[in-house]
Amino acid sequence: MKERLLSGDRVTGKLHLGHYAGSLKNRVELQYRYDTFLLLADVQALTTHYDRPQLIGEHLRHVALDYLAAGMDPEHATFFVQSLVPEIAELTVYFSMFVTVNSLRHNPTVKAEAAERGYTQLYYGFLGYPVSQAADIAFCKATLVPVGEDQLPHMEQTRRIIRRFHELYRPVFPEPQALVGDFPRLPGLDGRGKMSKSLGNAIALDASSGEVSEKLKKAKTDPARIRRDDPGHPEICPVFAYHEAFRPEGAAEIRRTCSAGTISCTACKEKIGSSLNRLLDPMRERRAAFASQPKRVDELLLEGTARARAIAAETMLEVREAMGLAYFGGDRR
Amino acid sequence: MKERLLSGDRVTGKLHLGHYAGSLKNRVELQYRYDTFLLLADVQALTTHYDRPQLIGEHLRHVALDYLAAGMDPEHATFFVQSLVPEIAELTVYFSMFVTVNSLRHNPTVKAEAAERGYTQLYYGFLGYPVSQAADIAFCKATLVPVGEDQLPHMEQTRRIIRRFHELYRPVFPEPQALVGDFPRLPGLDGRGKMSKSLGNAIALDASSGEVSEKLKKAKTDPARIRRDDPGHPEICPVFAYHEAFRPEGAAEIRRTCSAGTISCTACKEKIGSSLNRLLDPMRERRAAFASQPKRVDELLLEGTARARAIAAETMLEVREAMGLAYFGGDRR
Ligand code: SF4
Ligand code: SF4
Repeated sequence: MKERLLSGDRVTGKLHLGHYAGSLKNRVELQYRYDTFLLLADVQALTTHYDRPQLIGEHLRHVALDYLAAGMDPEHATFFVQSLVPEIAELTVYFSMFVTVNSLRHNPTVKAEAAERGYTQLYYGFLGYPVSQAADIAFCKATLVPVGEDQLPHMEQTRRIIRRFHELYRPVFPEPQALVGDFPRLPGLDGRGKMSKSLGNAIALDASSGEVSEKLKKAKTDPARIRRDDPGHPEICPVFAYHEAFRPEGAAEIRRTCSAGTISCTACKEKIGSSLNRLLDPMRERRAAFASQPKRVDELLLEGTARARAIAAETMLEVREAMGLAYFGGDRR
Repeated sequence: MKERLLSGDRVTGKLHLGHYAGSLKNRVELQYRYDTFLLLADVQALTTHYDRPQLIGEHLRHVALDYLAAGMDPEHATFFVQSLVPEIAELTVYFSMFVTVNSLRHNPTVKAEAAERGYTQLYYGFLGYPVSQAADIAFCKATLVPVGEDQLPHMEQTRRIIRRFHELYRPVFPEPQALVGDFPRLPGLDGRGKMSKSLGNAIALDASSGEVSEKLKKAKTDPARIRRDDPGHPEICPVFAYHEAFRPEGAAEIRRTCSAGTISCTACKEKIGSSLNRLLDPMRERRAAFASQPKRVDELLLEGTARARAIAAETMLEVREAMGLAYFGGDRR
């Protein structure tokens, strides 16, 4: 039997190149080796979007198409919608009984995200994000979890939660491992931070080739390069990072020619633009094919969710048995 | 259609006279006027018993028998087991998105219970108790909730959570009212605080008549009464509180004769002992009748739980519709 891989994204917007380089590319490759579970995390999207949940509904099918476009194969990966698997909420509640508030408050990612969003008040669900992520991973007994670098503290907390469960009751879950992509922090077009939809510095996976050129044209480059033959500093230029991530075969040459001032930024951007379009072209085709069959997409989400629920029900019976709560022979009508 | 009443107890031990005077008596009387939901709160029992869940399993059927003995009528009241209605966990997770950690930290009952138990660390689930209580009440759209006095802050928080849900999304729930019993703080036999199983100062509803006499014999009385004709202070004597709660017709006479020093504590205790046995005798009969049919008790718990789940599923569909999360026409296979 294959080991299980869990991965997913909060449904708060379209996916972009940062997601692809950070972990989606990994998942596409690993889906043939692992029994891959692909979580459309609409409930966790509420931790930051509880006041505009309609956005989540709008984005759900879009993200499903992003996955399909990127090459996730519903024959190999189980797509599922978090809100349709209430057992995840149930497991979150059980885990929450033995996780301290302090361990959540001191989780660096929770702290960083709260600061980034300027939250003056912590919401209870936001604070509990690591607990619900542990439930995502544990309910399907995943052993491998492709994540961004910023998720490593959550993975550590997941492992602690699972160990504590085993100490208190008995072993039920494997201890999952994190897998960080080669480019966990792809810079945004503004060069100021990670590529992110909310910062408006992203190239979406559904960008047309016109949009790609347009966005690259406006991308920040090394400000020291005023004239074409000014030497550049590729390591501070987001465009160079895209070469490294998406055109590795040509990155050394760009580094050399940029540093020597023998390539124009325009030419450099054209080169990466062509590569990005070569990456995105087959995605565009797959997207168009699935987008024309919305019923099929809904169906594959529902089928995947049904599979996830069946596994969730089995796990929750084991959990309740381990805790001594499986009354009536575990019967639940 | 009748309005709905929700009530219940954390399954952490047998019920005792304090529960009866505090709210169970009310529930028995109200079950004919309200569509009564009776919650066996095993999940919430984990907030303090996560490290010994086997106690919960042991007590579950005992508490069910306590209810039946006390006169709760399964023809009128829907008995249900919290862990078998995972929709409550689901609603807890949704509510948790917009409840601030501070409002939970400042909840006086959460603070008092943490202090009482000497908790140096707050657990996430313990802190969220008021959120899960809001979900208990909201999932079945209860309008009336018989509670102990100490639960009033939770009820206030429940109302705030419901109002906030309505502001953010749209109205789904009624605003529930609390109903406090006439004797919300029956003193324990040691006269030092509320009757409570964990303080060992309680008379359980399943006490035999011998146990009742035994416990009353050892009950603290007014320490000023050394000789039979010393005048007493009934207002500081737990035995007098029992007269008021369970033998109101004779309480004025006890007050008079105790204050005058014309009744012995022994005689006073015998009088309340007889009254308690008159209250408990029919409970003993009903208990014996149900205890001899454990399958029937299991069956009524499962039937009640099935009814609660059906209502929970309807409510959760409404909740997900209100939040814009009812994709695929709300389908959930
Ligand atoms: S040549 Fe390329 S890598 Fe160098 S600064 Fe211009 S865009 Fe950036
Ligand atoms: S006579 Fe009764 S009320 Fe008075 S002190 Fe004795 S036990 Fe208490």
